[in-house]
Amino acid sequence: MAKLVECVPNFSEGRNKEIIETIIDEVRRTEGVKLLDYSSDKDHNRTVVTFVGSPEETREAAYKLIKRASELIDMSKHQGAHPRMGATDVVPFIPIKDITTEECVQMARDLGKKVGEELNIPVYLYEDAASSPERQNLANIRKGQYEGFFEKIKDPEWKPDFGPCEMNRKSGATVIGARFPLIAYNVNLGTDNLEIANAIAKKIRHIGGGLRYAKAVGVMLTERNIAQVSINLVNYEKTAIYTAQEMVKMEAKRYGVPVVGAEVIGLVPMKALIDCAEYYLQIENFDMNQVLEARLSE
Amino acid sequence: MAKLVECVPNFSEGRNKEIIETIIDEVRRTEGVKLLDYSSDKDHNRTVVTFVGSPEETREAAYKLIKRASELIDMSKHQGAHPRMGATDVVPFIPIKDITTEECVQMARDLGKKVGEELNIPVYLYEDAASSPERQNLANIRKGQYEGFFEKIKDPEWKPDFGPCEMNRKSGATVIGARFPLIAYNVNLGTDNLEIANAIAKKIRHIGGGLRYAKAVGVMLTERNIAQVSINLVNYEKTAIYTAQEMVKMEAKRYGVPVVGAEVIGLVPMKALIDCAEYYLQIENFDMNQVLEARLSE
Repeated sequence: MAKLVECVPNFSEGRNKEIIETIIDEVRRTEGVKLLDYSSDKDHNRTVVTFVGSPEETREAAYKLIKRASELIDMSKHQGAHPRMGATDVVPFIPIKDITTEECVQMARDLGKKVGEELNIPVYLYEDAASSPERQNLANIRKGQYEGFFEKIKDPEWKPDFGPCEMNRKSGATVIGARFPLIAYNVNLGTDNLEIANAIAKKIRHIGGGLRYAKAVGVMLTERNIAQVSINLVNYEKTAIYTAQEMVKMEAKRYGVPVVGAEVIGLVPMKALIDCAEYYLQIENFDMNQVLEARLSE
Repeated sequence: MAKLVECVPNFSEGRNKEIIETIIDEVRRTEGVKLLDYSSDKDHNRTVVTFVGSPEETREAAYKLIKRASELIDMSKHQGAHPRMGATDVVPFIPIKDITTEECVQMARDLGKKVGEELNIPVYLYEDAASSPERQNLANIRKGQYEGFFEKIKDPEWKPDFGPCEMNRKSGATVIGARFPLIAYNVNLGTDNLEIANAIAKKIRHIGGGLRYAKAVGVMLTERNIAQVSINLVNYEKTAIYTAQEMVKMEAKRYGVPVVGAEVIGLVPMKALIDCAEYYLQIENFDMNQVLEARLSE
């Protein structure tokens, strides 16, 4: 069984197609790595890339992407709506198959060291690879953004984990780490009352006393005129999709509001959905190897 | 995207390990084909093999398996509890990915012609490949079994679709065809009353006025002392697992009996379970390409 890791680098160019394609070509050209998806946002002036492969080849593709982005993007001229601090802004490694989070953490460290030493870019480790609790959260690290980092980097508390202790004017600084697959799951309510969606979101999310691995906010779907509970599940093995779904239903009952639909945004691991089928069908002793496609990929 | 077809030949040897392995070696040796599973039953004196591959290579592996079985199995000496009429008894082709039932029917015809002509074995086409409605049902074709076929084959109504119009004494006759993936799904009831399981089975199965693509019988799980509704779903895209599950629950209510569990037996296509997750989670507009593993296998 082959180890499989996912990598989702975000780089700070979302407008110039030639630059975007040239950077992504580094992934396409790497053997043993498969480009799954990429999307650019002009307002954010940012591109998100998703690829998978074996650990070594994935780390190699990530390095080549960071190197190319450092050559083609000049952060001193970058403008965009999304918070950012580097040409390659953030690079998470995500365990997919037969690989542990610890191995992904080691990949992040190895890549961070190489980027720091060979490309002269300050590197911060985040999430499961973080060197301190304050560095777990990406938003916490990125506070102040590119412009603010020329000062922030001098603070001993914000000394980079790898690379130079001063800002790279052209490339900024890069955040590298390891995290579990994130599932973006939204539940639509049979109401146009955003306050109800917000109240439910507060109840189900971790910081409100809810589910350990759920983040949630209320959102208004203006076209359909319905309120939605927008959820991020950061560990679907411990906080399952069906758990979030049933908890939204339970809280919605207090308002006499039905759940009228749901949506999965972007990619989702097969197991996250099959776990739900197992729960609702009350299946006993299911083995993922009974799934034909799982057997085929062995 | 590569076409993928499954083949599940049943051959009439379940006791002699050397013969069994030699026959299965024909599948192992065929490039582009993957052996997923095989199991032998001594009482039935029969082995069921499951493999997948591209259409041409799968047909080739099936032919080589039939040829080897015709050399190593002598039906005039065969005894076993399971109904059978040939050394290779039945060979279904099953569409898995990017392949139509029609293409599988053509595979069955091509293989049947070759087996008839080159191995001198009478061949009957069944299920979706059947040449007449009476030949759709395997049990209908096989009635009389090996011993009865020396007479049955002379009946013009039972003229083989391919091959000689008289029985092959050593190899018998073989049934080849195409069918949709079959899902074996059992629902456990919170009762030790087999009559209730039987009554529910009658209501949900096609012939009882129930679901078009469901077969069902009541079964007693003696070790656990509970009754079970044992279901075969012969077209999960039209009669879904969740439909069967909910209909069992609905009928069980009449007796005040709860569903206490369920089980999937053997292999199941990923989509059959994800369809259930979609239903219960009320997911709108889901695309199978959002499943990471589906994207990887592209």
